[in-house]
Amino acid sequence: MPTADDAVDSGLLSPATAGADALVSDSAIRLAMVEVEVEYLRALETVGIAPAGLAQRMAQAEPPASVGLARRSVLGGNPVIPLLADLRAELPTDVTAWLHKGATSQDILDTALMLTAHRARAVVLERLTETAGSLARLADGHRTTVAAARTLTQHSTPTTWGLRFATWLGTVLDARDDLAALDLPAQLGGASGTLASLVALSDGPTAARMPALFAAQLGLAEYHPWHTSRAPVTRLGDALVSVTGALGVIAANVATLSRTEIAEVAEPAAHGRGASSAMPQKQNPVLSVLIRSAALRAPGLSSTLHLCAATAVDERPDGAWHAEWPTLRELLRLALGASTLAAELTSGLTVDTERVAADLALSGDDILAERAVLVGVTGQPADYLGLSDALIDAAIERARS
Amino acid sequence: MPTADDAVDSGLLSPATAGADALVSDSAIRLAMVEVEVEYLRALETVGIAPAGLAQRMAQAEPPASVGLARRSVLGGNPVIPLLADLRAELPTDVTAWLHKGATSQDILDTALMLTAHRARAVVLERLTETAGSLARLADGHRTTVAAARTLTQHSTPTTWGLRFATWLGTVLDARDDLAALDLPAQLGGASGTLASLVALSDGPTAARMPALFAAQLGLAEYHPWHTSRAPVTRLGDALVSVTGALGVIAANVATLSRTEIAEVAEPAAHGRGASSAMPQKQNPVLSVLIRSAALRAPGLSSTLHLCAATAVDERPDGAWHAEWPTLRELLRLALGASTLAAELTSGLTVDTERVAADLALSGDDILAERAVLVGVTGQPADYLGLSDALIDAAIERARS
Amino acid sequence: MPTADDAVDSGLLSPATAGADALVSDSAIRLAMVEVEVEYLRALETVGIAPAGLAQRMAQAEPPASVGLARRSVLGGNPVIPLLADLRAELPTDVTAWLHKGATSQDILDTALMLTAHRARAVVLERLTETAGSLARLADGHRTTVAAARTLTQHSTPTTWGLRFATWLGTVLDARDDLAALDLPAQLGGASGTLASLVALSDGPTAARMPALFAAQLGLAEYHPWHTSRAPVTRLGDALVSVTGALGVIAANVATLSRTEIAEVAEPAAHGRGASSAMPQKQNPVLSVLIRSAALRAPGLSSTLHLCAATAVDERPDGAWHAEWPTLRELLRLALGASTLAAELTSGLTVDTERVAADLALSGDDILAERAVLVGVTGQPADYLGLSDALIDAAIERARS
Amino acid sequence: MPTADDAVDSGLLSPATAGADALVSDSAIRLAMVEVEVEYLRALETVGIAPAGLAQRMAQAEPPASVGLARRSVLGGNPVIPLLADLRAELPTDVTAWLHKGATSQDILDTALMLTAHRARAVVLERLTETAGSLARLADGHRTTVAAARTLTQHSTPTTWGLRFATWLGTVLDARDDLAALDLPAQLGGASGTLASLVALSDGPTAARMPALFAAQLGLAEYHPWHTSRAPVTRLGDALVSVTGALGVIAANVATLSRTEIAEVAEPAAHGRGASSAMPQKQNPVLSVLIRSAALRAPGLSSTLHLCAATAVDERPDGAWHAEWPTLRELLRLALGASTLAAELTSGLTVDTERVAADLALSGDDILAERAVLVGVTGQPADYLGLSDALIDAAIERARS
Repeated sequence: MPTADDAVDSGLLSPATAGADALVSDSAIRLAMVEVEVEYLRALETVGIAPAGLAQRMAQAEPPASVGLARRSVLGGNPVIPLLADLRAELPTDVTAWLHKGATSQDILDTALMLTAHRARAVVLERLTETAGSLARLADGHRTTVAAARTLTQHSTPTTWGLRFATWLGTVLDARDDLAALDLPAQLGGASGTLASLVALSDGPTAARMPALFAAQLGLAEYHPWHTSRAPVTRLGDALVSVTGALGVIAANVATLSRTEIAEVAEPAAHGRGASSAMPQKQNPVLSVLIRSAALRAPGLSSTLHLCAATAVDERPDGAWHAEWPTLRELLRLALGASTLAAELTSGLTVDTERVAADLALSGDDILAERAVLVGVTGQPADYLGLSDALIDAAIERARS
Repeated sequence: MPTADDAVDSGLLSPATAGADALVSDSAIRLAMVEVEVEYLRALETVGIAPAGLAQRMAQAEPPASVGLARRSVLGGNPVIPLLADLRAELPTDVTAWLHKGATSQDILDTALMLTAHRARAVVLERLTETAGSLARLADGHRTTVAAARTLTQHSTPTTWGLRFATWLGTVLDARDDLAALDLPAQLGGASGTLASLVALSDGPTAARMPALFAAQLGLAEYHPWHTSRAPVTRLGDALVSVTGALGVIAANVATLSRTEIAEVAEPAAHGRGASSAMPQKQNPVLSVLIRSAALRAPGLSSTLHLCAATAVDERPDGAWHAEWPTLRELLRLALGASTLAAELTSGLTVDTERVAADLALSGDDILAERAVLVGVTGQPADYLGLSDALIDAAIERARS
Repeated sequence: MPTADDAVDSGLLSPATAGADALVSDSAIRLAMVEVEVEYLRALETVGIAPAGLAQRMAQAEPPASVGLARRSVLGGNPVIPLLADLRAELPTDVTAWLHKGATSQDILDTALMLTAHRARAVVLERLTETAGSLARLADGHRTTVAAARTLTQHSTPTTWGLRFATWLGTVLDARDDLAALDLPAQLGGASGTLASLVALSDGPTAARMPALFAAQLGLAEYHPWHTSRAPVTRLGDALVSVTGALGVIAANVATLSRTEIAEVAEPAAHGRGASSAMPQKQNPVLSVLIRSAALRAPGLSSTLHLCAATAVDERPDGAWHAEWPTLRELLRLALGASTLAAELTSGLTVDTERVAADLALSGDDILAERAVLVGVTGQPADYLGLSDALIDAAIERARS
Repeated sequence: MPTADDAVDSGLLSPATAGADALVSDSAIRLAMVEVEVEYLRALETVGIAPAGLAQRMAQAEPPASVGLARRSVLGGNPVIPLLADLRAELPTDVTAWLHKGATSQDILDTALMLTAHRARAVVLERLTETAGSLARLADGHRTTVAAARTLTQHSTPTTWGLRFATWLGTVLDARDDLAALDLPAQLGGASGTLASLVALSDGPTAARMPALFAAQLGLAEYHPWHTSRAPVTRLGDALVSVTGALGVIAANVATLSRTEIAEVAEPAAHGRGASSAMPQKQNPVLSVLIRSAALRAPGLSSTLHLCAATAVDERPDGAWHAEWPTLRELLRLALGASTLAAELTSGLTVDTERVAADLALSGDDILAERAVLVGVTGQPADYLGLSDALIDAAIERARS
C-alpha cells in the first residue's frame, strides 16, 4: 500500500479493537475526505456555481495514493492541505479549478469525520441490536433461574438470571437509543463560518442552499456552521462512551460471575480462546477482559472531547480542534471493537444452573432475611422474586420495539 | 446549624461556584432524602400498603438535625442509614413502623440526588435562558460591527461581532436543549432491583403501581430500576459538562478578546470586580476567568461518572455507586455557578467598536485575500460577510422558540 | 461559626473522606493564608525591609472571621483579596502598612495550599506507615497460607496470602516513597514573577534573600517563581493519586476476595459497620467500598491538574490556576480519607484459612498444571511457591527501612 | 510489509505525532517482544537452566512476519500468545523447547513496553535537551528585551522576554528531570508473580538470580514482580504527561503571543508551513497548535493509567492491564511528537523587539502602577525588572548542569 510510510500501525496493543477498525483506518478517513470533496463539488454544480459534470469525473478517478500524508500534514497542521495538493496533481485542470473552491479545511475534515462516524455508527448499532437480541433471549430463557443477587459484593436477596440479563439489556438499549438518536451533521461554513466565499461566488440565496444540499448528498444532517460550537462532537463522544460503558457492565459482570469460585456463567468456547501462555488448564473470560479494557479507556477520551469543546476559541481553535480527531476516532474504534466482541460474547454465553443453585444455597435462609423482617417468614427464594417477570417482559418488549 | 460538624466547607477555593450552591449543599441533600422518604411513605399509603396519614405527619415534623451525619455515614457506607436512625429516634412509632419499609438505601439516595438535580436544573436553565437572551440582544445589536475573524489565532477573513455572538448563542442553546430534554427518574427497585419487598407487602399489581406514583409525587420521571444501569446519571453528567463547556467557550473568547492588545470586549464593570491585590490599574476579566475554571474542571468529573457506570457490577456496585455522589454534586455546582456568572457576564458585556475596527485594520487588504483569490477583488470587509445576517437571524429565532 | 455563610458543606456525599478533612477545610485554608501573610511579613522584617515586630503582633491577633469570604472571592477571583480587606480592617495601621507589601495573591494562595498539603501529607504518610506496618505483619503471618492465585479472574497457580500482602505492601511503599520524596515549595515571585516589588523596596541582594527565608519559616522548600510552571502541583497530584490507587488495589482485592463465594478475607468488625438499610444479615466490606470510591474519583482529578499545568499561559493564567485549587484540595481530602480507612482496614483484616484452603482445592491438580508441563509432576500446592518467602522478606525489609 | 493486515494506520489524524513514531509502532513493539524473549532465554542459559547457545541462534534468526498478529491477539487477549506460536513455527525444536519456558505473557509484554519506553525516552530526552538549549540561548539573548508581563490576560508589570524564556526553560527542565529520573524496570514474575516456574526448573538461589540478569541484559532496572503493582507504569505516564504539559505551556504562549494583535514572537518559517487551504495570506503558528493538541490529549490518557493501576485485582487484572498498553503507547507517541516539534519550534523562534516595545507602550505608566504604589515613582519599565537577570542566570545554569 502506498500509504505505508504514514502507517502508525497501532492495532497490536489494542486487541479489543482488532478486526473492527477498517472503517476508521487512515485509509478510510482519507477516502472519506476525497468523497467529501467530491460531494462538495457536486453541490457547487447543483446550485450552479460550478459547471456540471466535474464531480462525476472526480468520483470516477482513482483517489491519489497520498504517500506520506500524515507527515505532510504537519506543515499545515491538518491532512486536508496535502491531500488537496495530491488531488490537484492528478485531476484535470478544469476539475481542479473548482475543487474545494470556497471551502475550508475544517469543512472537509469535520464532515469526513462525521461521515466516518455515520458509517461506524451503523455497524455499532447493528452489533448492539445483535447483543440486545441475545440478551433478550437469555432473559427470556432464564426467567426461572433463581440466583443470589449481590450488593456491595455480598449476597442480598434472590433474583433471577433472567432479570440480570434484562437489566443488562436495558443498559444496552439506553446506549443504543442515545447513539441512534444523534444527528450527525455535515460542516459547511467556509474560512470563518460566514460562508462569504460561497456568497462571493454566487449570491446569498444560492449560497444558502449549499449546506442542506451538501449534507443531504452525504446522508448527514444539516446544521449551522459549528467550527467552534462542538455539540456534534461531544454528543457523539458521549454516546460512544455510553456504548462502551453499557458493554463494560456486561463484561464486568461476566468476568466476576465466571470466577472459579462463582462460575455461574461462561463465555462461549472457541478453539484457542482464553488460553494462557503458561497454564494449560486456564480458560480466561477473554472477551469480557477485552471489552472491559475498552470500557476503562473510553471515559478519559470522552473527557478530552468535552475539554476541546470548552476551549474552542476564535473562529477556529488553536489545538482544541486538532486534539479531537484522533480522540474521536479512537472512541469510534473502541465502540466498534467492544460491540463486536459483545455480540459474540452474548451470542454464546451459557449459564450453569447447577452452580447458580449451589451459590444461592451458600446463603441458606439468610438470603430471605429481608422477607423475614417484612412479613415474618422466609420460605423459598423462588417465592421472593418480586416483579422479576414483569421487568423481564418490559425489557424484552423494549428490545423488540 | 447543628450539622456543623459534618460541614466540609469547601466553597472558599471555588469562587466559580460561590453563592450558587445552596441547592446542592449537604443540608439540601439531607432534606431531599427526608422528602423522598416522605413521598415513598405517601406512595405506600396511596396503594394501600401503609395506613393513611403517616406521610402527612412525617412531612409536618421537623426534620432531624442529624448531627455528624457524614461521619456516621462511614459505618454503613451511605448517609441513608444514619439518617433513618435519626428519623426513627424522633418520629412516633406508628410512623417509623412504615418508614422506608420495602425500600433500599439506593432508592432513597438516587432519588434524592435526582430530585436535587431536578431543582438545580431549573435554575441552570433559567440562567441559560438569561444568557441566551443577552447573547441574542448582542447578536442583533452587532450585526454591522465588522470584525476580524481569527483562525489558529491569526486574522482570517471578516466577520461580525453579531455572528460571533450568534455562534456562542447556538452553543448555549445546544447545551440548554440537552439539559432540558433529560428525563430525571426516580429510583425504586428495593434491595436488589426486583421490588420483592413491595410484592411481599402487597401483591404484584399493587407493587407495580408504586414506581410511577412515587416518581410522580416528586415530579420525576418513571423508569425501571436503574441501580446498576446508570444512563440517568451519565446523561445528566454529559448535559452538565456541556453547559460548562458552552459557557467556557464564551469565557475563553471574552478573556482572549479583552486582552490588552485586542480589547474588543469588556466585562461589565462592578465596584471592586477584577481588582488585583498588587496592581491598582488592573481590570481583570474575572467572570470569564472563573467560568473558564469551571469549564476546565468539569470534563474530568464527567469522565468519572462514565467510569462508574462502566464498572457497575452485581445488583449494587462496590464503590462505583459511591464515587458518583460527590462527583455529580460537584458538576451540578459547577453548572449552577458558571451559569450564574455567565448570565451576569453576558448581561453587561460591551463591545468597543473602535477597537474592533482598529484591530480589523491591522490586516489591511490581507483580510480579503480569500476574496481576491476567489473573485479577483478585495473591496471592503463589509462586502465580505456572507450569510452573517441570516445566521444571526436563525440563532435569534432559535433562542426565541 | 461566623464563616457559615460560606460553607458549602460537602462531606455528606463523600463518606470516604469523612472525619479526615479538618486539615483541608475552608477554615484551615483561610488560617493557612493568614499564617502565610504573617511569615511573609516576618521575612520582610528579617531582611530589613519592614520594621521589626509587626509579624509577631499580627500572629498574636485573632484572625478575622472573614464572613462570606467565598462569596466575596468572586469579585477579585481569589480569596486573598477579601481576606486582605478583612485583615486590614482589624489590624493596626502600622502593621497593615507592611501587610502583603510586595506580594501578589498567587504568592499567598499557592504557598498556603502547599503549607496545607505539607500538613496533610504528614498525616497521610503516617496512615500509610500504619497500613504498611499492618501489611508487613499480615505478610509475615501468612507465609504459609497457601492460596490460589488468580489471573484474569481464574485460578492460575498457587501463591501465599503472605505474598499477596507483600505485593500490596510494595504498592503502598511505592506510593509512600513518591509522596515522601516531594519537595513542597513556597511561592514567591511578586506580581509577575520578577520580584521587582521586593527589589524596589530594598535592593537586589536583599530581595534575593527573601524566597529562601520565607520558605524556611514555613517549613517549605525553596523554588524559583512557579506561577506558571506547575510541576509542584502536578507532582503532588500524581503522588496523591498514586496513594489512592495503591489503597484502591487493596480495597479492590478485599472486596473481591470477601465475596460470599470466595470469603477468604473479612474486614475488621465494628458495631454497625457494613450494615444494610434493608437486609439484616448483610456484612458489607464497607471500608473497601469507600476506599475504592476514592480510588475511582482521584484519576479524573489528577488529570485536571495536568491539564491546568499544560494551559498555563502568560505570567498568571486565566482560569487554569483557579481550577487547580479545589481539585488539589479534593485530592488531598481523598488521600487523607482513603489512608485513614485503609489503616483501619488493614489493622484488623482477617484471613479465613479454611476458606482459603477450600477455594484452592476447587482447582485440584489443575492449579499445578504449569508445574506438570514444566517438570512433569504436580505434587502439592505448597511445593510450588517459588520465591514467595524471599519476596515477602524483601517487602518487609523495605517497609522497615 | 507482511504485517499490513494488522496495521490500523492511525497517524493521519495526529499530525502532532507524525514522523516521531517509528519507535512505538506495532512493528517496533513486536520486535521488542522478540528481543525480550531472546534475552529471557539468554538469562536462562546464563544461570544454567537452559543449554547454552540457543538465545544466540534465536537472535540471529529472522523474526517471524507474524501476519495478522493483532487480530490473532483477540483469542488469548494479548499478542504474546500468537507471537509465540509464530516463533515456534519457525525456530528449531531445540530452541523452542526452551523458548518462554517459565515466563508468562505479562513478563514479556510489560518488559517489551518498558524496553520500548526506554528507547523512546532517550529520544524524548534528547529533544528536551535541544529545546532546553534553545530556550537557554533565547533567555540569554533577550535579557534586555523589556516586555509587558500579563496576568489574567491583562498587562501587569514589566518583565523581560529573557525571563519568560527562562521560565519555560525551568518548566521543561522539571519535566526532563522527572523523565530522566525514572527507573524503567523489567518484569519477571512468572504465571502468578511467585517465580515458581523458575524455581521448579532449577532451585531458589538460581531462580533468584534471574530478575537482575534479565533486566541488566535489556538495560532495564530490576524490580520485584509488579504484575499488579503498577507504579512503573503510572510514574512513566506521569512523566510523559509532564513533558507534553511543559511543551504545551510553550505552545500556548507562542500561539497567544503571536496573535495578529500581539505578534511579539513568530514561529520559524519553513516552506509551506502554516499555510491555509483557503487564505493565502495566513501564517499559522502550526507547530504550537500541534504541540498544544498533544498537551490537551495527554492528561486524559495519564488518568487512564492511574485508573488501571487502582483497579488491578488478583495476580493479573481482568482488563485494567490490557487498557494500559495502547494508552501508554499513545503517551509515548505524544511525548515523542511534541518534543520533536518543540525542538524545531524553539530552535528558530524569533522575537520581534519592535512589537514587544509597542505592546509594552500600550499600557504607558500603568505598567508601573505597582511601583508607584510601593515607592511613589513610576520611571521606566527597564527600571522595574527585579531579579530577572538572576533568575535567567539560574535557569541557564540549571540547563547546563
